[in-house]
Amino acid sequence: MTQHNAPEPAFHVYDTTLRDGSQQEGLTLSVTDKLAVARLLDELGVTYIEGGWPGAVPRDTEFFARAASELELTTARLAAFGATRKAGVPVAEDSQVAALLGSGAPTITLVAKSDLRHVHAALRTTGEENLAMVRETVAHLVRQGREVFVDAEHFFDGFGHDPDYTTAVVLAAYEAGAEVVALCDTNGGMLPHQVTEIVEDLRSRLEVAGHADARLGVHTHNDSGCAVANALTAVRAGITHVQGCVNGYGERTGNADLLTLLADLQLKMGMELVPEEAFAETTRIAHAIGEIVNMPVTPRAPYVGASAFAHKAGLHASAIRVDPDLYQHIDPRAIGNDMRMIISDMAGRASIELKGRELGFDLAGDPDLLSRLASSVKQREAVGYSYEAADASFELLLLDQLGEVPRYVEVESWRATSQQGRDGSLETEATVKLVGDVHGERERKVAIAEGNGPVNALDLALRAALRERFPMVDEFELQDFKVRILDAHHGTDATTRVLVRTSGRGLEFQTVGVGPNVIEASWEAVFDAYTYGLYKTGV
Amino acid sequence: MTQHNAPEPAFHVYDTTLRDGSQQEGLTLSVTDKLAVARLLDELGVTYIEGGWPGAVPRDTEFFARAASELELTTARLAAFGATRKAGVPVAEDSQVAALLGSGAPTITLVAKSDLRHVHAALRTTGEENLAMVRETVAHLVRQGREVFVDAEHFFDGFGHDPDYTTAVVLAAYEAGAEVVALCDTNGGMLPHQVTEIVEDLRSRLEVAGHADARLGVHTHNDSGCAVANALTAVRAGITHVQGCVNGYGERTGNADLLTLLADLQLKMGMELVPEEAFAETTRIAHAIGEIVNMPVTPRAPYVGASAFAHKAGLHASAIRVDPDLYQHIDPRAIGNDMRMIISDMAGRASIELKGRELGFDLAGDPDLLSRLASSVKQREAVGYSYEAADASFELLLLDQLGEVPRYVEVESWRATSQQGRDGSLETEATVKLVGDVHGERERKVAIAEGNGPVNALDLALRAALRERFPMVDEFELQDFKVRILDAHHGTDATTRVLVRTSGRGLEFQTVGVGPNVIEASWEAVFDAYTYGLYKTGV
Repeated sequence: MTQHNAPEPAFHVYDTTLRDGSQQEGLTLSVTDKLAVARLLDELGVTYIEGGWPGAVPRDTEFFARAASELELTTARLAAFGATRKAGVPVAEDSQVAALLGSGAPTITLVAKSDLRHVHAALRTTGEENLAMVRETVAHLVRQGREVFVDAEHFFDGFGHDPDYTTAVVLAAYEAGAEVVALCDTNGGMLPHQVTEIVEDLRSRLEVAGHADARLGVHTHNDSGCAVANALTAVRAGITHVQGCVNGYGERTGNADLLTLLADLQLKMGMELVPEEAFAETTRIAHAIGEIVNMPVTPRAPYVGASAFAHKAGLHASAIRVDPDLYQHIDPRAIGNDMRMIISDMAGRASIELKGRELGFDLAGDPDLLSRLASSVKQREAVGYSYEAADASFELLLLDQLGEVPRYVEVESWRATSQQGRDGSLETEATVKLVGDVHGERERKVAIAEGNGPVNALDLALRAALRERFPMVDEFELQDFKVRILDAHHGTDATTRVLVRTSGRGLEFQTVGVGPNVIEASWEAVFDAYTYGLYKTGV
Repeated sequence: MTQHNAPEPAFHVYDTTLRDGSQQEGLTLSVTDKLAVARLLDELGVTYIEGGWPGAVPRDTEFFARAASELELTTARLAAFGATRKAGVPVAEDSQVAALLGSGAPTITLVAKSDLRHVHAALRTTGEENLAMVRETVAHLVRQGREVFVDAEHFFDGFGHDPDYTTAVVLAAYEAGAEVVALCDTNGGMLPHQVTEIVEDLRSRLEVAGHADARLGVHTHNDSGCAVANALTAVRAGITHVQGCVNGYGERTGNADLLTLLADLQLKMGMELVPEEAFAETTRIAHAIGEIVNMPVTPRAPYVGASAFAHKAGLHASAIRVDPDLYQHIDPRAIGNDMRMIISDMAGRASIELKGRELGFDLAGDPDLLSRLASSVKQREAVGYSYEAADASFELLLLDQLGEVPRYVEVESWRATSQQGRDGSLETEATVKLVGDVHGERERKVAIAEGNGPVNALDLALRAALRERFPMVDEFELQDFKVRILDAHHGTDATTRVLVRTSGRGLEFQTVGVGPNVIEASWEAVFDAYTYGLYKTGV
C-alpha cells in the first residue's frame, strides 16, 4: 500500500462500495474480489476507497493486511471504517479502535451517533458520554498520525429532532481534529429541499462556532429515490466530499450511485474530478465491478447501463438518422458507452436499417427485405425470442432473409440425460448425431460426451462432432449462459429463453434460443453460436 | 369506459406506463396486459392513465376499442396520446388526429415539439408552422369536446436554447384551449436546480402573458439519476401535474418512477393524492404489474422493493430489536411493504434469532444452536446457496439443526432425458424411484412422466411417486422457477442456483437448490418444496 503525501484535494470522491455497498442484499465479496474492485476504483481515479471494517469483519481485517503488500494505489487513498470507542471504555483499551490502527490505513473514517435517540436506544449511554467518545477517539487516532473522517450517523433525522445536540457532535469531531464530517442520511428518507435547508442551517451554526471553513461531506441512500439529487443539492450548498457506491449498491434501496454522481458533477456541473481519459473508462469499470461482485449493472442504470443510450421507438429511429445529438443528453463516448438501436417487435424499418448498418449491411435500397425482416422479428419475439441482447442471432436471421445463412451441418438427433444413482452420484451425458457434405459425400458424425450438466455435455458433444471438419471450434468458448423463464406463472411448465455469450478469435457475441424445454432452448443458442462463429471466421 | 363528470382534481397523478413505459428495452405489452395494468392503476387511484397511441400503434388502437367495452374505471380517466397534425396538412384531414378522436378517450395528450432545433431537424418545417400545428390541433380536439393536454417535447433543452420560441409553443397550447402543458425533459439530462430555474423563468413569462393560472405539468426521465427529484422540485415550483411510469419503466434509463414520486408526495410532502387504504396496496400493485409486464420489481426499488425495508447488518439487527422505527424512514405498512431480516453469511446470531422469531421459533435461549445455524448458513452460502430469498429452505435447515427435519421418503435414484429425433420432434421423460416406510414396511415406488422439459418431467414424476401416500401433493403448484448461473465466466460449465416458488393450501414459499448441473439443482429445490409443503400441512 502506497502512502501519500499529495496535497489535499479540493473535492473528495469517496467510495464505500467495499464497506456500505456490501450491505446490499445478495452481495458477498471475498478478499480477492475486494482487491480487484479497489484496483478498478483507483484506475477510475476516486479520491478515497473505504475498504471495510477491520476488527469487526474478519474478511476486512484480512483485506487491509493483504492490501498493505498487494495493493499499489495510484490516485486513491485507502480508508478503514470503524466505530468510536465503546461507552465507558478508555480509548486506548478499546480493541476495535486498536484494530483500526492495526489496519495500517492512512485514513480512518469513524462512525459516530449524532441522533440523541440512537445514543439512548442503541448505545444505551448519555449524550455527554457519546460526545466524549467522539472527541477522544478522533483525538487518539489523530495523535497516531492518521487522517480522521467522521460519519455523523442519522445526522439528518437527528438534526430534525434535536439540532443543538446533533451540531454538538459535529463540533466535537472538528475540535478533536477530524478533517471531514460526513452528514449521513442513514435511513435514506430525505428529500432535496430538506437537505438544502438542514445543510444551510448547520453551516451557519458552524460559522457562529468559528468553524466556517470546516470540510463537510454527505452520505445518502436511495429510500426516497433521491440519493443522487440529495448529494448534488448538498454540493450546491457547499459540501466538498461525497460518498457513494459503484452501481448504487448498498443496504435496502442502495447508496447514492457514485458513478452517476461523478458523471453529473463532471459533465453537468463543470467539476473536473477525474481526468477525461480515466472518466471515459467509467462504463467498462462499472461492468467489470458488476461481474466481480456478481451483480450485473442494471440495463437502466444512468450513463453506464446497456439501455442508457438505446433507442427503441420508431419515431426516434428516423429522427436519429438526422442528428443523434438531439436525442442524447450527453455524448455517450465521454463515459465509454455507446448509442445503440434496439431491435424489437416495435422496431420499424428505420430501426432495422440502422441496426443493419451497425452490423455492416446496407439495407437502405431494399424496402421489401426490411419489411420481411421486421415481420420476422415481430413473429419470433411473439413466441419468446428476444433480439435486443442477441445481435448474433439477429444477424443470422438477416442472413437467412438474404438467402446467405450458412448451413454447415444438419442435425440428425441429440439426447441429453442426467441421472442420480443409489449412491447419490450424478452422471450427465449427451449424444449428438450430425450429417454433412464432405467433398461431395454425405458423412455422418456421432459424438458422445459427459459434462457437468446437460448443456455442458451437449456443448462438448457438439464440439466433438464438429472438430474434425472445423478444428477452429476449439478456439471458441461459451462465456456466459443466462436462463430466463417466461410466463413465470406456469411454474416448471413454462417457456424458457436462453442467452449464450461466446468469445473466441477476437469476437464476442450473443445468441438466443427459446423453447418449453430449457435443454432445447440451450441447444438452439449453442448451435447458433457455433454457426455464427464459423461464419464470422470465414468458413 | 366510464365518462367522468367529476370536478377537476387539484393535482394530477398521470401514469404513462402503457405508452412511454412500453419503450423500455425488453418490455412488450399485449392488449390484455394493458387492460390488466389499467385496472390495477385505477385501483391505486391515479388520476389519468395514458393508454397508448391509437392510429400509430395497431395494438394501441385495439386497446382503446376494447377499453370502451371492457374497462370500468372508478377513479382514473383514460388519455390517448398522439402528435399534433402533420406539417402542411389541414387538421381535419390528418388521419392520426382522426384516430385520436376515434379512440373515444375523454382526454387527449398531444406531443408537440417545443425545441426549435427539433422542429427544423425532425419535422423539417418552420417554427411558425409548428406553432400553427399546435394551435390548430388543440383547438380542433377541444371543439370536439375533448380535454386536451400538451406534452412539450424537449422543453428544457429547447428553453435553454431559445426560451422565447419554447415559451411561444406553451402559450399557443394554452391559448387554443389546452388544460395542461407538461414540460418534458425528453432526453432526461436535467438536474434539479436547472428544473427549478427554468420552471420559475417560464412561470414569470406566463404571468406577463396573462396565463399565471395555467396548469403546468412535468415529465421527467432518469438519465442523470434525478427523475424523481426533478419532478419533486417542479412540484415545489408550483407544478400540479406529474407524469411517470410504474416501477420506473421507460426508454433508456426509464421515466420517473410514479410510485416513488407518489409516495414522496403523499408521505413526505403532506399531499393526500390517493386514499390511505388504496395507497397501502401500492407494493402489491407494483409487483402485480411487474408480473404482468414480465419485468419484476427490482429488489432495490424505493418503498416497494423486496429489499426496501430489509436489514442485513449485524449492527442494525441488534439495535432493531430495541426500536424498529429508528431504522426506517417510514412505516413500511403504510405502503403495504414489510420489514425483513436477511439471512446471509454476514448474519450474526442476532439476525438469525430475529429470523427464527419471524418463522415462529424462539431460539433466544439456545446460543449453541444459533452458532451452529449461523455457521451452517455461512458454509452453504459459500458454495452457492442463498437463503435471502428462500425462507422455506432456511426453515428446513433450522429444523435439521433441531433434529426435526422431516424425511418422508428416501430418494433411490432419478433420471431425466431430453432428446430430439430425426423428424425434429422433442421428447422429455423422467423416472423417479423412492423408498419409504409404510406401516412399518419398506415400500419402493417407481414413477415415470413426460414433461415439457426435464424439470417439469421430474416434478411430475416425483408428484406421481408421492401421490398415493401423500395425496395432498396435488394441491401444491410450482409457480415460478428462477435459474441463476454463478461463476458466469465458466460458461456452460458453471455452478447453477435454482429458486422455486411454490403455492398451495394457503402457503407460498421459496426453496433453493445448487449444483453444477441445472437439473440437479432444480431437483433439490423441487424436492425441498414438497418436503416443506408436506411438513407445513402437518404430515
